[in-house]
Amino acid sequence: MVEKSWVLIVLVVFIMHGDESLASDPDPIQDFCIPNPKFGAIKTAHLSILPCKNSSEATTDDFVFTGLKSSGNFTDTGLATFPVNPTIFPGINTLGISFVRADLKVGGINPPHFHPRATEIAYVVQGSVYSGFVDSNNRVFSRVIEQGEVMVFPKGLLHFQMNVGEKPATMFACLNSQNPGLQKIPSAIFGSGINEELLEKAFGLNHKQIGTMRRRFDPKTVN
Amino acid sequence: MVEKSWVLIVLVVFIMHGDESLASDPDPIQDFCIPNPKFGAIKTAHLSILPCKNSSEATTDDFVFTGLKSSGNFTDTGLATFPVNPTIFPGINTLGISFVRADLKVGGINPPHFHPRATEIAYVVQGSVYSGFVDSNNRVFSRVIEQGEVMVFPKGLLHFQMNVGEKPATMFACLNSQNPGLQKIPSAIFGSGINEELLEKAFGLNHKQIGTMRRRFDPKTVN
Amino acid sequence: MVEKSWVLIVLVVFIMHGDESLASDPDPIQDFCIPNPKFGAIKTAHLSILPCKNSSEATTDDFVFTGLKSSGNFTDTGLATFPVNPTIFPGINTLGISFVRADLKVGGINPPHFHPRATEIAYVVQGSVYSGFVDSNNRVFSRVIEQGEVMVFPKGLLHFQMNVGEKPATMFACLNSQNPGLQKIPSAIFGSGINEELLEKAFGLNHKQIGTMRRRFDPKTVN
Amino acid sequence: MVEKSWVLIVLVVFIMHGDESLASDPDPIQDFCIPNPKFGAIKTAHLSILPCKNSSEATTDDFVFTGLKSSGNFTDTGLATFPVNPTIFPGINTLGISFVRADLKVGGINPPHFHPRATEIAYVVQGSVYSGFVDSNNRVFSRVIEQGEVMVFPKGLLHFQMNVGEKPATMFACLNSQNPGLQKIPSAIFGSGINEELLEKAFGLNHKQIGTMRRRFDPKTVN
Amino acid sequence: MVEKSWVLIVLVVFIMHGDESLASDPDPIQDFCIPNPKFGAIKTAHLSILPCKNSSEATTDDFVFTGLKSSGNFTDTGLATFPVNPTIFPGINTLGISFVRADLKVGGINPPHFHPRATEIAYVVQGSVYSGFVDSNNRVFSRVIEQGEVMVFPKGLLHFQMNVGEKPATMFACLNSQNPGLQKIPSAIFGSGINEELLEKAFGLNHKQIGTMRRRFDPKTVN
Amino acid sequence: MVEKSWVLIVLVVFIMHGDESLASDPDPIQDFCIPNPKFGAIKTAHLSILPCKNSSEATTDDFVFTGLKSSGNFTDTGLATFPVNPTIFPGINTLGISFVRADLKVGGINPPHFHPRATEIAYVVQGSVYSGFVDSNNRVFSRVIEQGEVMVFPKGLLHFQMNVGEKPATMFACLNSQNPGLQKIPSAIFGSGINEELLEKAFGLNHKQIGTMRRRFDPKTVN
Repeated sequence: MVEKSWVLIVLVVFIMHGDESLASDPDPIQDFCIPNPKFGAIKTAHLSILPCKNSSEATTDDFVFTGLKSSGNFTDTGLATFPVNPTIFPGINTLGISFVRADLKVGGINPPHFHPRATEIAYVVQGSVYSGFVDSNNRVFSRVIEQGEVMVFPKGLLHFQMNVGEKPATMFACLNSQNPGLQKIPSAIFGSGINEELLEKAFGLNHKQIGTMRRRFDPKTVN
Repeated sequence: MVEKSWVLIVLVVFIMHGDESLASDPDPIQDFCIPNPKFGAIKTAHLSILPCKNSSEATTDDFVFTGLKSSGNFTDTGLATFPVNPTIFPGINTLGISFVRADLKVGGINPPHFHPRATEIAYVVQGSVYSGFVDSNNRVFSRVIEQGEVMVFPKGLLHFQMNVGEKPATMFACLNSQNPGLQKIPSAIFGSGINEELLEKAFGLNHKQIGTMRRRFDPKTVN
Repeated sequence: MVEKSWVLIVLVVFIMHGDESLASDPDPIQDFCIPNPKFGAIKTAHLSILPCKNSSEATTDDFVFTGLKSSGNFTDTGLATFPVNPTIFPGINTLGISFVRADLKVGGINPPHFHPRATEIAYVVQGSVYSGFVDSNNRVFSRVIEQGEVMVFPKGLLHFQMNVGEKPATMFACLNSQNPGLQKIPSAIFGSGINEELLEKAFGLNHKQIGTMRRRFDPKTVN
Repeated sequence: MVEKSWVLIVLVVFIMHGDESLASDPDPIQDFCIPNPKFGAIKTAHLSILPCKNSSEATTDDFVFTGLKSSGNFTDTGLATFPVNPTIFPGINTLGISFVRADLKVGGINPPHFHPRATEIAYVVQGSVYSGFVDSNNRVFSRVIEQGEVMVFPKGLLHFQMNVGEKPATMFACLNSQNPGLQKIPSAIFGSGINEELLEKAFGLNHKQIGTMRRRFDPKTVN
Repeated sequence: MVEKSWVLIVLVVFIMHGDESLASDPDPIQDFCIPNPKFGAIKTAHLSILPCKNSSEATTDDFVFTGLKSSGNFTDTGLATFPVNPTIFPGINTLGISFVRADLKVGGINPPHFHPRATEIAYVVQGSVYSGFVDSNNRVFSRVIEQGEVMVFPKGLLHFQMNVGEKPATMFACLNSQNPGLQKIPSAIFGSGINEELLEKAFGLNHKQIGTMRRRFDPKTVN
Repeated sequence: MVEKSWVLIVLVVFIMHGDESLASDPDPIQDFCIPNPKFGAIKTAHLSILPCKNSSEATTDDFVFTGLKSSGNFTDTGLATFPVNPTIFPGINTLGISFVRADLKVGGINPPHFHPRATEIAYVVQGSVYSGFVDSNNRVFSRVIEQGEVMVFPKGLLHFQMNVGEKPATMFACLNSQNPGLQKIPSAIFGSGINEELLEKAFGLNHKQIGTMRRRFDPKTVN
């Protein structure tokens, strides 16, 4: 019995960590690759590529996602995002695409952020949303987009949104990577522990001001 | 004056055809590439990659598409598709992603077809749509998907849809190529002029039956 | 003893399914990768990427394929194909290329089909073969090609062949993916179980006619 | 004469802008591609991919860059960067790699920034440089690196540097794109004209504080 | 008339050189891209990517190559190669694949060489050919392959062949790039003008011996 | 106890060899992938892609390489290279880039060689180095480069270097693959065991001369 448990631990560790090394968004070389439910218990937030089921075991449900009908949980800025990746929607594994539902309360914002590994197409399901991005020359491209309209945020560029309408807004967005990544500027800069002197010089803020910002985005408080 | 006209013709021919040779869906190496409006007059259906504007001439409108608010024209099978590519939405040029609005009348179908160069994510904006695809082992993965649900059609595989609800259906779909391509099976097989004997043997149909099929999908009649 | 068996099962399951998730046709990052013979017993049709041998254990035989000297088994339409993939020819694993021998009896056909993940180069070793493909505009490009001639079928497009000569024909074809995939239209459409009403509407056939087609390509009968 | 000038203008416009549409970092399909000096007069900052010379006209000097021996101009934060791209070093055109010399005065900083299209390898030629990056979970990886040491900044992730030694620091860095792109956070966020209300909500700053930040990074003042 | 000619010259120069900058072997984003015959007069050996015809002008002949029925010209070592690239076979343009016919006289050799941008699949049409490659650890994988057998030469690795049979040998080989490149070691090393002292030290040869080698592979004499 | 050991052996074999099959230089789909130290004991020279640590276990030291401060061991030709790959610098794993320190004694040479999978950027840290490469037309591009200068060697092309200064030379070079590969011509050709008759014919040398070359580059003597 000892051996069995020990081997299981080794296997679990290997599978939990090992799969990440395989991650990539190249052309697939099989029709699809459904993560194997036998390893379901060890799914983690870090496990974006999973071992596949034999293709004959795949079911239609692997290729349909029904979880987007309501919004996710709202943050302090009035934003709820529900990103869909291969861990929760196995059918997209290895296929180089993923999607997200985003809801904004009236006046809510999606703070400046970027996805290191994808271009985003945002479709407004309902509402009026001020949307924009910044290019490498620090030029902003922004305007209000309405229900049925679409905006594109080019790969890796800073972008942001704010619900400027009088009712809640909902968007459906696609990204051309199965794991686009995300860096939210306020928390990545002020809530991550970058050297304080460097931040003071970078933003022209004094010690006290930086301290205020850091408390505001302290990862122990803010998610 | 003769020279001027002649040179223009040469330029136009070069630009109309030459750009196609550049087509590819690799990683972009600039923030974006907005087709140059100075060459707008020569846009054609075959011109998916266009010369760029200087990035300082790009405007926010280049990155917002507002044309999806109503459906396209319906075919005989009750389908209206509005595919959005870089020719009509310049902001996605070179970014490896595109999208389409598809509407189905009650009972309408999207016949079996495939996109040679992309995986598709289909989001049901409204309605109940029987949707499915066939894998390389001729197995069908299909079911009815409802408003707010999403189905994935893996790259290059045959798929199809039918509105099985009691009201019109609308879908918003993303594809991870700026020019995914499309082959509709009924017209590609029977409306394209493939040798008749070959079709008879392939489908086990007789001369008369193939003739009926060919008249049905004659490109002079059907679009 | 129980533990040993159980662990082996876990390992085998992991290896059988897990490897598929790694499949891709990117640039290799090692000289080559020969599947490990120690895992030979668990090879399956679904296992296109296998664990590698240590490169010092690779042998010349891993890089030479001698099995193409005779044709494969013929189907009812007079076609015999022998596709060569990394499972049977380990040397091509990870290198983004594969090949196939195809033989056609006099009058035999290769029905309309496509490869979702590769362009094909077909070289006529002997015989006279009517060959062609259909583009996205439903235009057919076809003609008879003779011994020593070559035709290209662009990536993901429908193509077909028929032996129009008076002796058997043999072709050698290369594809630029180690696992190009295959969808044969007659069986993928009529032998896969797509909803009957949808097929009736798509092809303009009545209930009885579709029934005939489905019996003809019933997967229980036809392979 | 009128025609000649007019045609030239058209050509110049086409060449200036058109080339951007070709940009990509895929595998090259020729040995190299040296931009054609005949079009040298129309080089612009936006022209990263240029028409090639005939390969027989390429010279050794096209493949050697001698301009990195002294630093570039220093900014207010004590940073001088000299990025080398195909416009100034033709030999790297189409080859998927570029490099930069960066100098930091004592106490100088390279503010938080990221490259949307490349991983960076930074080699310290001289000096002691606090260096780091932030991952998608807002965790900082940072420490002081010394002469002869190397740090990697993964693709698309925020990173930063500060000279913490007692003498000037010099770094040589490589990036695996010929045009990696750059977004400097302070100026991209506060100097680009993003909606003020959105910034207030995103950073928890009041109207006056945001105004101060915007004046500090006003593009009319700051570069 | 002056203007017309001058403009033509500019266009020709642009087209001759400009197209090389577009070269790459990524996924195509159109069905195919046939070089435009209107620019046929300016084809050069350096022009592997050409402007496209409008797809409606493509003909079946663009996709069939009939020129491989006889061998090319033989070199002093008894080798005749006929490489087929997009300049002579327009149909493969942008599709990431090409091919070559190689003939060897009895005792003829294909000297050690490599293709910087492709893996090669060599199929023996007739004859007995000693074939092999060297891996990064200087290990040779070689043996005689016979009619109907296939050997793979992994991407970028040195390989070679010799006809060891008693009749001429013919091979058909595919490469997964439309322009694989070629470096033949004897002439690239000794016939290219590398510094003599360096060659002496690299090969342990004296001044006189290097001189002999250089005369033997002098590009003025040998091709 | 037997089971435990046996299973461990299977696991170790799987991990040692299996990972190579995953190797590729595509876009990463996670921020980074640090090889798991728990599997550190089984690292081998052949194991360039390793299972990852959970990203929360990564440390700053994983992303900093401090081992380049002194040269590697010198060969008989006065060359010392220290190539840095993911096995010794885990932070670059999956990121498509690597680097090398190269030192040359006075008069020392780096013999003609090439990297099958990368373009190289060579920066002269100190010294005067004759550097060059050969293109597909056997043309040499070479000259002496000095401290602070940079030369690019395009992907897969033969290149070489010689210290022509009066003091030792040091270079820092980047390559855009995490495992570029290496074939040194003298030892790959004469020290690898290629058929002697073929070498005689390829280089125009007699039996005795080839024998001398082979003894000089005998892998048992030379590394």
